[in-house]
Amino acid sequence: MDKITPKIMPGFMELLPEDQILFNEMIDTIRKTYESFGFLPIDTPLLEYSSILLAKAKGETEKQIYRFKKGENDISLRFDLTVPFARYVSKNYYNLAFPFKRYQIGKVYRGERPQKGRYREFYQCDIDVIDENLSLNYDVEVPSIIYEIFKKLNFGKFTIKINNRKILLGFFNELSISDKTSDILRIIDKLEKIGKEKIIEELRKINIDNEKIEEILNFITITGTNEEIISKLKKLNIENENFNSGVNELEYVISNIGKFNSDNTFYKIDLTIARGLDYYTGTVYETVLDDYPELGSICSGGRYDNLTKYYLDENLSGIGISIGITRLFYKLKEAGIINSKVKTLTKVLVVPFSIENIPYSLKVAKILRENEINTDTFLEDKSFKSKLKYANRAKIPYVCIIGENEEKQNEVTIKNMETGEQTTKSIEKIVEDLKRD
Amino acid sequence: MDKITPKIMPGFMELLPEDQILFNEMIDTIRKTYESFGFLPIDTPLLEYSSILLAKAKGETEKQIYRFKKGENDISLRFDLTVPFARYVSKNYYNLAFPFKRYQIGKVYRGERPQKGRYREFYQCDIDVIDENLSLNYDVEVPSIIYEIFKKLNFGKFTIKINNRKILLGFFNELSISDKTSDILRIIDKLEKIGKEKIIEELRKINIDNEKIEEILNFITITGTNEEIISKLKKLNIENENFNSGVNELEYVISNIGKFNSDNTFYKIDLTIARGLDYYTGTVYETVLDDYPELGSICSGGRYDNLTKYYLDENLSGIGISIGITRLFYKLKEAGIINSKVKTLTKVLVVPFSIENIPYSLKVAKILRENEINTDTFLEDKSFKSKLKYANRAKIPYVCIIGENEEKQNEVTIKNMETGEQTTKSIEKIVEDLKRD
Repeated sequence: MDKITPKIMPGFMELLPEDQILFNEMIDTIRKTYESFGFLPIDTPLLEYSSILLAKAKGETEKQIYRFKKGENDISLRFDLTVPFARYVSKNYYNLAFPFKRYQIGKVYRGERPQKGRYREFYQCDIDVIDENLSLNYDVEVPSIIYEIFKKLNFGKFTIKINNRKILLGFFNELSISDKTSDILRIIDKLEKIGKEKIIEELRKINIDNEKIEEILNFITITGTNEEIISKLKKLNIENENFNSGVNELEYVISNIGKFNSDNTFYKIDLTIARGLDYYTGTVYETVLDDYPELGSICSGGRYDNLTKYYLDENLSGIGISIGITRLFYKLKEAGIINSKVKTLTKVLVVPFSIENIPYSLKVAKILRENEINTDTFLEDKSFKSKLKYANRAKIPYVCIIGENEEKQNEVTIKNMETGEQTTKSIEKIVEDLKRD
Repeated sequence: MDKITPKIMPGFMELLPEDQILFNEMIDTIRKTYESFGFLPIDTPLLEYSSILLAKAKGETEKQIYRFKKGENDISLRFDLTVPFARYVSKNYYNLAFPFKRYQIGKVYRGERPQKGRYREFYQCDIDVIDENLSLNYDVEVPSIIYEIFKKLNFGKFTIKINNRKILLGFFNELSISDKTSDILRIIDKLEKIGKEKIIEELRKINIDNEKIEEILNFITITGTNEEIISKLKKLNIENENFNSGVNELEYVISNIGKFNSDNTFYKIDLTIARGLDYYTGTVYETVLDDYPELGSICSGGRYDNLTKYYLDENLSGIGISIGITRLFYKLKEAGIINSKVKTLTKVLVVPFSIENIPYSLKVAKILRENEINTDTFLEDKSFKSKLKYANRAKIPYVCIIGENEEKQNEVTIKNMETGEQTTKSIEKIVEDLKRD
């Protein structure tokens, strides 16, 4: 029979178990932190009616959608977790407690041209808080959650960059270039990536005159401490309502952030951050690892008005963040920040010396499991050497060997696969040792 | 603006947070149990090349596939986790330790006609062990894993039904009706559902003569203890290799099961179990809740030969089980066996009495979280009544109230939302109480 090559499509990540364990641990940390802040889980279909998912999508997004017909239905795969969240809140509006805090961790799909580190299927780990006139205090809480997560994930020092889109929008309004707002935002968002000269070039291309380009550059390169930046912004004396409301919000967030978390050296105002997406309307966040700026933002988000406007009369505003964990995982591996596990989830392999020792071996395995020690049992009828080879390949750190003597003495021989050390002890003693390890 | 109705497609399950928490707890229990037996996680793409996924699919399955084209690619959504597992093992053959034990929990897709309790998108929770000439001991281990899971899930007494397909196949061979094997298997699999008379009717329809129908019925209705059934099978004196090999395997599994687990009253031979799927070749399992037989099988599986034959020269046999948790969850709710949580994941809501109390409130929340107590903080500027109303609606069991007095005394007032009881204590004391609760 002709064999079929067992390949997967480009742009889809698939891991060996040792990496999958690492990946799952990151997701578990994120999930536990979200839950610790009172966020509740939801899970939405991967397939939805195209009319729902694409209500506001256009241009680039729409081209990337996996969309097809089945019978009468025009179906799309979700491309983010935000649109399904808006639909979920609208659908269940009368059954939710507001402010509604939810987390969702799941796969999304974008049919991009595949390239290194770009995925067509990837996990997003999102939280959002949503309510009518949601308090600005949640803009302060959200970065403290980002802080907790990346402290726990332990990839080194990081910076949470904060800005407010109202400041940018008000400023452009003052320069009478509001009609070019989305183009300008798109361009200045790339400052770190492409540099000042390229930014000037691109701004000229959309017909901004030199004087205004200079004002834009002076503005987005305002530096100093967070307090100095706020002070410099105020001194610009811009009489624009949107601008001043943005500065006040930013000041509130920055000056209160220390109260939400003891260490406010992790937070930095960055006036170039605009976020690509059109729907952010206030505070925006990006997060970078200080030692690996080339990784780009590893956690982004912000505040938006009226997320549910396509489905609901009620005006609900919210704030959220998203961690694109698939791409992050790929980059962390590439940069050598994380490495495949040297140990597996399984702590012990119980090895019956011969087939007669299976029942006693199973008894030992059961006791280990009852003590929350993940325990594999080797049940193939193979040579002793093959059994130890399996433990090595599977990266299991301890092997419990059960032979005739062990059974007679009601004991177990335990071998540390790293050091080679081998001792014979009572089951109780082994449980004690392994639980401490 | 015209609003879009925020609906989802029929056949897709979506839960409110209180049910989602319950659902996730079930998945967590299953995952932890799988891990405790040494199974490792994998995650495969939801989309694969149709040529891979449909290598062996035909008829009913193929009609149900969500299949579409994007660019040059002919793509399908996975309809189970077994085919992707076979492809994964083939692809990573040289990087895996055998016997390879993996678990996978994920969504699969079948475009069935939607009806009550039938889903087009549903979770499967699978384990498989795979190796060349995998030992029969794994056939004995697998039901002991099913046992552990349903003990922990605590839905009442259950029975794990066991059979061996070789017995059925050998028996049909003896009756010279092997050419009708799959039809007969399909029919007798329905014995419990449709009864003896209907079975006879259906067997006649496929032209089995009355004498043979009687033999089939006598055979599949053999009753007694497990030991009696084995003994009766042996006494049939059927000189068919397949039949006798099946009886011996079944005897081995049944007589050793007590060694893998202390309570063997949960295991019962049932000669009518054949499993619909074509690929099982030996031991097969089904699991039913004794008090709710109408739920049907809640966990099924079995042994198969050469799972990877479409992709790989090596001959790998395996054994696995699958829990269709979406349908199970629906049925358990319907039958009233599980109920929505009266409490949420969040244990405490910290409520600052007024805006001035926010910093101290956040300090309290931080301490609670550091003690692994999930803590929400109410940050909206609303009336005290609204704050308590939120705690009630969100089903949060405790509220910590922080006012001027609490701040001064370095204390917290805690209210039990169920009893209404309210006391003022030190944070340390509250942490202690909550951790004990």
